[in-house]
Amino acid sequence: MEQQERGRRRERSRPRRTSGGIKQLPWRELEVRLGPLELIDDEALEAIHRASLQILSEIGIDFLHPEAIDILKKAGAICEPGSQRVRFDPALVEELVAKAPSRFRLHARNPAHDLEVGGRFMTFCSVGSAPNVSDLEAGRRPGNFKDYCDMIRLMQALNVVHLHGGYAVEPQDLPAATRHLDALSAVGTLSDKVFHAYSLGRTRILDALEIIRILRGVSQEQLAQEPSLFTVVNTSSPLRLDGPMIEGMIEMGRMGQMIAITPFTLSGAMAPATLAGALALQNAEALAGIAFGQAANPGCPMMYGGFTSNVDMKSGAPAFGTPEYAKAVLVGGQLARRYAIPYRSSNVNASNCVDAQAAYESMMSLWPVMLAHTNLVMHAAGWLEGGLVASFEKAVLDAEMLQHMSELLQPLVVNEDELALDAIREVGPAGHFFGAAHTLARYETAFYAPMLSDWRNFETWRQAGAEDATQRAHRLYKKLLAEFEPPPLEPAIAEELEAFVERRKREGGAVAA
Amino acid sequence: MEQQERGRRRERSRPRRTSGGIKQLPWRELEVRLGPLELIDDEALEAIHRASLQILSEIGIDFLHPEAIDILKKAGAICEPGSQRVRFDPALVEELVAKAPSRFRLHARNPAHDLEVGGRFMTFCSVGSAPNVSDLEAGRRPGNFKDYCDMIRLMQALNVVHLHGGYAVEPQDLPAATRHLDALSAVGTLSDKVFHAYSLGRTRILDALEIIRILRGVSQEQLAQEPSLFTVVNTSSPLRLDGPMIEGMIEMGRMGQMIAITPFTLSGAMAPATLAGALALQNAEALAGIAFGQAANPGCPMMYGGFTSNVDMKSGAPAFGTPEYAKAVLVGGQLARRYAIPYRSSNVNASNCVDAQAAYESMMSLWPVMLAHTNLVMHAAGWLEGGLVASFEKAVLDAEMLQHMSELLQPLVVNEDELALDAIREVGPAGHFFGAAHTLARYETAFYAPMLSDWRNFETWRQAGAEDATQRAHRLYKKLLAEFEPPPLEPAIAEELEAFVERRKREGGAVAA
Repeated sequence: MEQQERGRRRERSRPRRTSGGIKQLPWRELEVRLGPLELIDDEALEAIHRASLQILSEIGIDFLHPEAIDILKKAGAICEPGSQRVRFDPALVEELVAKAPSRFRLHARNPAHDLEVGGRFMTFCSVGSAPNVSDLEAGRRPGNFKDYCDMIRLMQALNVVHLHGGYAVEPQDLPAATRHLDALSAVGTLSDKVFHAYSLGRTRILDALEIIRILRGVSQEQLAQEPSLFTVVNTSSPLRLDGPMIEGMIEMGRMGQMIAITPFTLSGAMAPATLAGALALQNAEALAGIAFGQAANPGCPMMYGGFTSNVDMKSGAPAFGTPEYAKAVLVGGQLARRYAIPYRSSNVNASNCVDAQAAYESMMSLWPVMLAHTNLVMHAAGWLEGGLVASFEKAVLDAEMLQHMSELLQPLVVNEDELALDAIREVGPAGHFFGAAHTLARYETAFYAPMLSDWRNFETWRQAGAEDATQRAHRLYKKLLAEFEPPPLEPAIAEELEAFVERRKREGGAVAA
Repeated sequence: MEQQERGRRRERSRPRRTSGGIKQLPWRELEVRLGPLELIDDEALEAIHRASLQILSEIGIDFLHPEAIDILKKAGAICEPGSQRVRFDPALVEELVAKAPSRFRLHARNPAHDLEVGGRFMTFCSVGSAPNVSDLEAGRRPGNFKDYCDMIRLMQALNVVHLHGGYAVEPQDLPAATRHLDALSAVGTLSDKVFHAYSLGRTRILDALEIIRILRGVSQEQLAQEPSLFTVVNTSSPLRLDGPMIEGMIEMGRMGQMIAITPFTLSGAMAPATLAGALALQNAEALAGIAFGQAANPGCPMMYGGFTSNVDMKSGAPAFGTPEYAKAVLVGGQLARRYAIPYRSSNVNASNCVDAQAAYESMMSLWPVMLAHTNLVMHAAGWLEGGLVASFEKAVLDAEMLQHMSELLQPLVVNEDELALDAIREVGPAGHFFGAAHTLARYETAFYAPMLSDWRNFETWRQAGAEDATQRAHRLYKKLLAEFEPPPLEPAIAEELEAFVERRKREGGAVAA
């Protein structure tokens, strides 16, 4: 019986000492030594693969830009005159997709924050592209530049967040034509981690490329050899790739920068109401995008993105962090590995507040995301409400969950010292290990120390205000912002960046887009 | 960029229609088609195995009951005269442990609720043995018979809960000597699922055996052939097995009933401050318990239980649902599979309230629990505060998470119909699938429908009262109790049970224990 478990727990419980600062895990590149986990067998995987090739050869996909049509025609795809529809011979798809590299390194302006992408490496992105922002104090509000900058600060401060996955929240109070200049120079100065640029037409991407070049203090040639910027390209499911995205892809690839193709195949809405069908469509669109990217710039670093989830059939509302999502993530990983292309998926949930639902839906994402050997985890920290909100408290909650994953991935060492037979001998039956030399030698570092979890006993916790995890996350994010110091940036670089942004603003920004 | 993901979501969002009753997944036996996931390699596993055999042969383990010493002596173990210490030759341990069956069936009084135990089958238990109970309305309070009965009703009503893992909450208002009679007759009449009996001495187990025999309407001989009752035996770590537990084990095994041996090896307290050491100790104690059980009653159904977690080294407070816990669960599964004995682990957390921490710690348990091929998941629904509280809201929250797991384990079908090429052809680029025949044919059943998750859009949710998952769980549990109807029980059986309980109460209950 478990009464003993409990009795012992109580007996040994003492109030926890409070710590001074916020303890975090150190910055780490993560290798997923577990798995990968295969949800479906090879036969089923090949059936999805074949179905997607059939979609691309029989139905085709629309590329909404004449340059794409030209590039694909030259590569051997079938494009009828005057049509945006492109059909691919299966062999052509496989030939083009094979040109994409399996592994590469993303370069940050701080080399300590460079990231390996591919294989068993897993990287965590901040939330990206939320139109709204929220915290417990000021509630839910439209995205703005102040919150945008605070989100950057928070993501820079959280060691477990590896890179910025787009604007955490859209700074809607900035003019559209120059917003990218302010937003990118903010992320480049307030943070020294890798960041993302939106493929919203050619101009914005060219500006972003120049901004990262200046920040890294490298030549165009070196930049082209060292992927330092990334963009996520969503297909407009079903079966369409938009013009501004195509322009961005061409420029990013030309400069050797990373492109993550991500179909948004919501099963029951933009994709069939069966997971197999939605995955066949996802795979067709991902392969078409990768094939196009490689036709435009052979060998440029790309990722296979999966974002397949389902809708609530009664309302059409999208659902995230569901069993279907978990399955789609796992199969997406199997497909990406089949093509030997790094995999992107996401930490998602559809909750309207930072509650238990937000946590369990996120965990229903994070576990399969890890077990699928996801290389780039978008929205890993801060995503709420199906992506309509970037939440400060959710960012801290997520960081805690990501830290759990990070720690889980550290190897369990089994050797004579760790097996502790001497300690077991010393303590013997009915003793305890609190005072054992073996224990004392590990006092500080033995176990993972969470930043958000509260393990105090009930009475102590109640008397201290009975704060739940969300309220504690609020305090933590405020503290992280209060203690924030921007990473160092050489004055010459800061000046060059400022001058570039000013000039481009005078020119009107992305006037052509 | 993901702005499109968002735009699309919004465009398609409509408020969800509310449903009448509480939709649940049906009762299902679960087969874990995923994994198993191996955390450590064979060499490390063998090192743990060897270390535990060394512990049992060199240090030994205390059995605090003369009957156990007699049984083990006869079986060939080394017991010095006048000592409780028993040492095992490694070969003897392996020989005895090999007698335990790899698979068996647990019989409920309702045969529809019988359960396969072993292999890839996974069963979910209610919370067991909490001294306190809580809900949002009345707060945290000492365990009592009314709440005990309500917990049984709730667990009977939740299809995803397969069996009762001990008293959900201790009915402290009942006299100790006869408590087991009231408690067991309540679980046997308010529920028709398999239940647990505490090995608190011989008398209580004999009473429990008679109660389940009456409830099932079978002979002693048939009962002995059909495991219908189970008990969890915690070793008193380190390296001790208590007398009342030993008596219970002997009687349970004699009647062919199931015994789950579970060392409570809290790393840093009752076990070394290293996971490898704690697991070596866990394994030594589990093997010793199983060896004893098999020496007493060869072939009786037993389980290998793991409950290794760690303490917060700064306070001594136990931690649950941590990265260390996840690792211990995975390695525990590897060890249980090595011995081909069904595996028991748990869904745990250390939160003081039903919040995001309770959810993420539980998910940090449930995923490894599933991937370790746990056969019996103790505390699957309702455990809070490291086991000090059984929570009504947590029970519903857990049931939702268990349903996620249950649904995840349903196979992803890949065939022509599910691949939906015809629908993809029909819809074509830039269309959508809401109105497709393929979608309409699956309208009702396409996706998992949660009972707790709220996917309405923010405004609708806010206007409806902005309830978080915990508040919704409160409403759900109240509704489930309000709608509860006890499962049918033949009047003759009810009478026989009542007469037995009355007689045993007149006799004073467990006076000898």
